Amino acid sequence: MTNLIIFAVITIGVLALIFTYWKSSWVKNQEAGNKTMQQIAEHIKKGAMAFLFAEYKVLWIFVAIVFVFLSYTADSQSSSWLVGVSFILGALSSALAGFIGMRVATNANVRTTNAARKSIGSALQVAFAGGSVMGLAVVGLGLFGLSVLFFIYSGLGWDINRVITVITGFSFGASSIALFARVGGGIYTKAADVGADLVGKVEAGIPEDHPLNPATIADNVGDNVGDVAGMGADLFESYVGSIISSMVLGALFIGGTGFTGENELNAVILPMTIAATGIVTSIIGSFFVKVKDGGNPASALHRGEFIAAGLMLILTYLVVAFLMPESWTAAGRDYTSLGVFLAIIIGLISGTLIGIITEYYTGTHKKPVIGILKQSSTGSATNIIAGLSVGMRSTMLPIIVLTVAIIGAHHFAGLYGIAIAAVGMLSNLGIQLAVDAYGPIADNAGGIAEMSNLPKEVRERTDKLDAIGNTTAAIGKGFAIGSAALTALALFSAYMQTAKIESIDISKPLVMAGLLLGGMLPFLFSALAMGAVGNAAKDMIDEVRRQFKEIPDLRKALSILAKYQGKTPDQWDTKDIEKVEAASEKAEYEKCVEISTKASIREMIVPGLIAVLTPIGIGFWGGAEMLGGLLAGVTVTGVLMAIFQSNAGGAWDNAKKMIEEGVTYDGITYKKGSEAHAASVTGDTVGDPFKDTSGPSLNILIKLMSVVALIIAGMIAVS
Amino acid sequence: MTNLIIFAVITIGVLALIFTYWKSSWVKNQEAGNKTMQQIAEHIKKGAMAFLFAEYKVLWIFVAIVFVFLSYTADSQSSSWLVGVSFILGALSSALAGFIGMRVATNANVRTTNAARKSIGSALQVAFAGGSVMGLAVVGLGLFGLSVLFFIYSGLGWDINRVITVITGFSFGASSIALFARVGGGIYTKAADVGADLVGKVEAGIPEDHPLNPATIADNVGDNVGDVAGMGADLFESYVGSIISSMVLGALFIGGTGFTGENELNAVILPMTIAATGIVTSIIGSFFVKVKDGGNPASALHRGEFIAAGLMLILTYLVVAFLMPESWTAAGRDYTSLGVFLAIIIGLISGTLIGIITEYYTGTHKKPVIGILKQSSTGSATNIIAGLSVGMRSTMLPIIVLTVAIIGAHHFAGLYGIAIAAVGMLSNLGIQLAVDAYGPIADNAGGIAEMSNLPKEVRERTDKLDAIGNTTAAIGKGFAIGSAALTALALFSAYMQTAKIESIDISKPLVMAGLLLGGMLPFLFSALAMGAVGNAAKDMIDEVRRQFKEIPDLRKALSILAKYQGKTPDQWDTKDIEKVEAASEKAEYEKCVEISTKASIREMIVPGLIAVLTPIGIGFWGGAEMLGGLLAGVTVTGVLMAIFQSNAGGAWDNAKKMIEEGVTYDGITYKKGSEAHAASVTGDTVGDPFKDTSGPSLNILIKLMSVVALIIAGMIAVS
Repeated sequence: MTNLIIFAVITIGVLALIFTYWKSSWVKNQEAGNKTMQQIAEHIKKGAMAFLFAEYKVLWIFVAIVFVFLSYTADSQSSSWLVGVSFILGALSSALAGFIGMRVATNANVRTTNAARKSIGSALQVAFAGGSVMGLAVVGLGLFGLSVLFFIYSGLGWDINRVITVITGFSFGASSIALFARVGGGIYTKAADVGADLVGKVEAGIPEDHPLNPATIADNVGDNVGDVAGMGADLFESYVGSIISSMVLGALFIGGTGFTGENELNAVILPMTIAATGIVTSIIGSFFVKVKDGGNPASALHRGEFIAAGLMLILTYLVVAFLMPESWTAAGRDYTSLGVFLAIIIGLISGTLIGIITEYYTGTHKKPVIGILKQSSTGSATNIIAGLSVGMRSTMLPIIVLTVAIIGAHHFAGLYGIAIAAVGMLSNLGIQLAVDAYGPIADNAGGIAEMSNLPKEVRERTDKLDAIGNTTAAIGKGFAIGSAALTALALFSAYMQTAKIESIDISKPLVMAGLLLGGMLPFLFSALAMGAVGNAAKDMIDEVRRQFKEIPDLRKALSILAKYQGKTPDQWDTKDIEKVEAASEKAEYEKCVEISTKASIREMIVPGLIAVLTPIGIGFWGGAEMLGGLLAGVTVTGVLMAIFQSNAGGAWDNAKKMIEEGVTYDGITYKKGSEAHAASVTGDTVGDPFKDTSGPSLNILIKLMSVVALIIAGMIAVS
Repeated sequence: MTNLIIFAVITIGVLALIFTYWKSSWVKNQEAGNKTMQQIAEHIKKGAMAFLFAEYKVLWIFVAIVFVFLSYTADSQSSSWLVGVSFILGALSSALAGFIGMRVATNANVRTTNAARKSIGSALQVAFAGGSVMGLAVVGLGLFGLSVLFFIYSGLGWDINRVITVITGFSFGASSIALFARVGGGIYTKAADVGADLVGKVEAGIPEDHPLNPATIADNVGDNVGDVAGMGADLFESYVGSIISSMVLGALFIGGTGFTGENELNAVILPMTIAATGIVTSIIGSFFVKVKDGGNPASALHRGEFIAAGLMLILTYLVVAFLMPESWTAAGRDYTSLGVFLAIIIGLISGTLIGIITEYYTGTHKKPVIGILKQSSTGSATNIIAGLSVGMRSTMLPIIVLTVAIIGAHHFAGLYGIAIAAVGMLSNLGIQLAVDAYGPIADNAGGIAEMSNLPKEVRERTDKLDAIGNTTAAIGKGFAIGSAALTALALFSAYMQTAKIESIDISKPLVMAGLLLGGMLPFLFSALAMGAVGNAAKDMIDEVRRQFKEIPDLRKALSILAKYQGKTPDQWDTKDIEKVEAASEKAEYEKCVEISTKASIREMIVPGLIAVLTPIGIGFWGGAEMLGGLLAGVTVTGVLMAIFQSNAGGAWDNAKKMIEEGVTYDGITYKKGSEAHAASVTGDTVGDPFKDTSGPSLNILIKLMSVVALIIAGMIAVS
């Protein structure tokens, strides 16, 4: 029976990959527009791939070292050198998912622009198709990898605990890539952004997206690197981590009442089965994302998600009822299949709730953002204070949701309940990530429309898609944090199980010290991430300045531009326009891409080492219980700081957007060019590294540290 | 023997109060300068007292309600209705200390200005005398109150645990006043500051300290309210809290080896004896704070502290050796008197270390502040990012010091060691607070010099004293956070002891939920505090605008001032000067003081209720262990957020100060009026509520919640 189910799961994983391939080809077969559009798109694509390859070049060294270390240390009765193989496969799968996602995103962007020349409906279709490739690639590769490894290792005649321990390497591999993609990507995207902004707009007086600006391609690449590959790797990690944790905790039931014979492993394979179910519902849901001309793209996206969630609700009930006994007892506690089902639903609901809360605190025309907007009229300082205050305040509700989820899931199904709730939260990841990844594609499409001088209505259509993308991105960020938190708690429970810790007692000074140290790490990590953006941006600025100085054509073009400052395009001399256009081809985009790439990888080494080495050091020095304290500390402040920073950043961003649209409150008109606008730009600039670098990188920190702890748990186990 | 020691302790408490009275009279007998100076000082004094009385008016209602509640619920075998009496006495003592401190500070400020007309040495002497009144009043009243209560309750024939439980009310009383003084005071001072700044400087174009500005007195009052009364109440709370926690834990040893007969209570009375010793050394140290003309005031202050610390080291050794047996065993653990001594020293040293670290991160001409300064050249946004990053980074070392202190103190003397380390850290509080409180007095003295047009050299002298005051204030803030953290941990240990909790296991979902909720509270509290400053400042702005509009003389004076914009004083018409001076007497200062007072008290109700009701709610709903998780969470993120916000604020402030002094780095000159200066002003404005309101108020949050937990511990005890 178990094998049959595993085959079904593997098949569904393959199905997701076939879907990915099919959608990806479909995107590629769409028209890519005129020559200028294709050229720009080619630059972005090349830049994105350059980043990925540069990243992989460093990565394989890291992967090789960890592989040797893992294989060597894990060669024991309770584990095996194969944990290193799992690690490599996990890293490869996540990297491949990132590669596929980036590739399709950089194909889909220009095709979305081109489709927007026809209608908003076609544009949505292309952009969402691109997003769904990313979504299904992540869940497909994640589930396929896990289930195949499970099948193979199960065939080696090992004890099931050993099988799962060896699979854990897969999760560690995924986390490692997430570190590079999310933290490195976060640094990359903001370094390029700030660099392009400061030298281009501020010093040379040209718009951010102007082709004369050598950093402009790096900036567009950054959107893909951070929001597509980074987000994908982050959620890949949560997805895999939550499934594995539930497997670890499910193994507790083996041999208990209702878990004997052919049903023995049912609690272990339930998480994978739920995930497989989610893939099916995600694919079905994605077919409903369609909009007729004049229709509302936002409701099309919601329709898809809603249908997938509804199906998931029904199918989860059936799957749980099929696999789990109606009730059983383990370690002195009663369980029911209904309880497990409810825990999964708690996860599903709380993910949605956190998303909605995030949208409230960061959405335009909502009270918090309007508050920041009003405070902008008295200058940058009050704008900043208001944003920080909104960010801090916004931690309350998500934390309450999380605590209710923890208490509820545990009430219904114990520690297994907490882990399976995380699986539930992530079960529909396929379509959720599709909606997420659609945002940056639409954003890029707008940039391409701008740079290739397409008619105004094209930009208007892509802007409309982009605006929806901003909302979905905000929700997605909240969801990513919520799932990271729940996954970290699931991994935490799995860690305790594996390290055989009965309790983590904060009244012991070592544990309290661990808690304090762990709590401090997110502050340190955030500071390092922000510092890294500053350093990397400085390199970028130097490079752009050099090009403006040393490339004669660029220098000339800049002086021509200066001549026309303040004039409308129709007052331009055609010859001058041609000269400027010709000069832009001399801008050495690839150098800027290289600078950003190198800097981002260099800057993430220290934070990366801290994340990996701290749990190892504390675990071996202070013991398993102190490490537990460390994990609790890092999870608590990590989640809080992530919510605080992401939401503050999102709220600042949207306050600026509202002012740029132009609004009136209490008799004061807020518009572009006003003092309030200048203040809101300051807020947005502060918020950028908050929401795109330091905030999201904390998701990785908390999961990576928990995974590392889980990996070494067997070695530091309390005997 | 015990009674003899208690008498000695009471006597030393009285000695401190006599010293306070003597110094206070000495200050009052100094010359107060010319009529203008006295007038201004009178305004500040009246404003400060108005704040205190307004505060007390609300306070007594709060105190009365809590008294009734406490007396009613505590009437049991293990406690008594007298806990309500302890509560009232604690509140009264803290309020009295604040009153004495404020009174002498508002006497000393103008006398310091006047003394500065002679020499810097005399000015230091007056300012420090004022500070030492505050310092000795806090420790004197704290110790006197505790020891007298101990003596009286001991005479009732109660079990010692009951005696200590009933005394705990004293600590709760102190915490309640600290809430009002520190949180309310923090809101007051920044509301006045921002209000005076925005309308005065920005809208009406007059300097912040100009007598025409109706908010200027409130601003000066604020310095006293926040930095004298607020800081004093904060440390009074730590002082009392740490002593009581050690007494609770010391009671564990009673009847054990070496603690029988007349030595039975020695571990219980050791904390009070150490505190008494610290009073003696503080008084001795204070006599060494003297500077000859041309001497360095900073080294005079350090000399006093250093001598006090040295004496303390020797006397502590003797006291511990005298009171404690050389070695003993309790609850399966070996203790030694040397271990207890070392724990105390660990506290003493780590307080100093945290102070030094704070100075590094916030001091002028140090790397972190220079970094912020450099980032100011690219605008407000980079200045803000740099400051936030410095604040976050600065959490690392203090947390490491704290963890080492916890582990070390516990290693040497168990939980008793952690509590007694907090006592050690605070033992020299008398002189430390004197140095702290000297700063705002010097600051006020400078303001008075400015407003009363004294010769330039007077202001130069007070500025020199003020500059040193800024450094001591930074160190003092770090020290306050460190002591709050250690006190909270001590209270936490005492709570566990009283609630009979064996362990606080974060692997239990309720405890983990408590940890998450607790961790969230400092974020919420900070957001509320910042929002409160915004609301209160708005009221102030409205009032100043009203006065400028409705008081004809003020309106006229403003138009005269506008005429002379950009002109030097010698280009003024004497008649106009007279008119403006006459007009300033029409400014209704007391209205602004009232506004700020009312707003601050109104705005602190919600945060105050959260701090008091959350532990009660969680304790009774989720049980003693969940409450333990809550306390751990609030302590960890509370300490982190306090360090982050205080240090970021301090660093921003000093980056601005450095730019105003004028410096050159990497070929760029930073000076007043430059763009970098404007950026640094933004940073300073953001930092103000950080370092003076939300940051320090977290000290109160963590201690108050722990005290409330300790108060209800008996009722929710695990049976």
